[in-house]
Amino acid sequence: MSYRHVLIAVDFSSASEHVARRAIGISRRNSAVLSLLHVVDYLPPLGFADDLLPTPALLVNEKELIGHGMASLETFARKIDLPADTARHVRLGAPHQEIVEFARTQGVDLIVLGSHGRHGLGRLLGSTANSVLNHAACDVLAVRITA
Amino acid sequence: MSYRHVLIAVDFSSASEHVARRAIGISRRNSAVLSLLHVVDYLPPLGFADDLLPTPALLVNEKELIGHGMASLETFARKIDLPADTARHVRLGAPHQEIVEFARTQGVDLIVLGSHGRHGLGRLLGSTANSVLNHAACDVLAVRITA
Repeated sequence: MSYRHVLIAVDFSSASEHVARRAIGISRRNSAVLSLLHVVDYLPPLGFADDLLPTPALLVNEKELIGHGMASLETFARKIDLPADTARHVRLGAPHQEIVEFARTQGVDLIVLGSHGRHGLGRLLGSTANSVLNHAACDVLAVRITA
Repeated sequence: MSYRHVLIAVDFSSASEHVARRAIGISRRNSAVLSLLHVVDYLPPLGFADDLLPTPALLVNEKELIGHGMASLETFARKIDLPADTARHVRLGAPHQEIVEFARTQGVDLIVLGSHGRHGLGRLLGSTANSVLNHAACDVLAVRITA
């Protein structure tokens, strides 16, 4: 009954370190593979995903977003002493969709992410944790963020 | 970063055993205290909670409900080989409220419960996992129930 592949989803908010440390502890106690994912909240230009070919300018833009995200992940990883063999991933899109999709395709059996609950900023922004809980095919650990 | 007090909330649905085994594994790996809680979904008679004194008949009825719940918990505990030192609790009320309240007053730092997600029966019944996630002051592990 132990987990084999633990996914940490972080948004670089002030609580991400707390969430990540929880997940690192769990992956150690389960001898699980650990993956770190940051989703750049991004809506592709209208038509992009449907039938228009992306222009080179748009492609460069998305590559830049991913590059920035990856650089932020590296900084974050150093800050929390992330185990060196942890895979780091950046995706563009709606965070809850990308997290659920990543977990489904990568064989993740536990998603760890922060939850603000219904109060404060979390409520205004809509809760990624709630959406992931409702749609993930695997277990979800919502780490309470009190700040 | 390990958990000290893990709460299993069970409703005796077919998936409760899976949820409980997850929680037992987690409490072992964290050397945490484990508590088992079943909430009898129960709405007190109108006025009962406000200003009327409970009649003896109502008290007996509630005691019976708790007694039945406790007997079911014992049967369940034997079935899953629950560690003998696990405290068993029965509460009457709205499950999500009672779970959150129990956790808050008993110093629980991880609530483990099943989640059906948004599809099927879980959606019709409303999701206890979602409500707990939104109101708990501690971490919440939603164990995915696929059946």
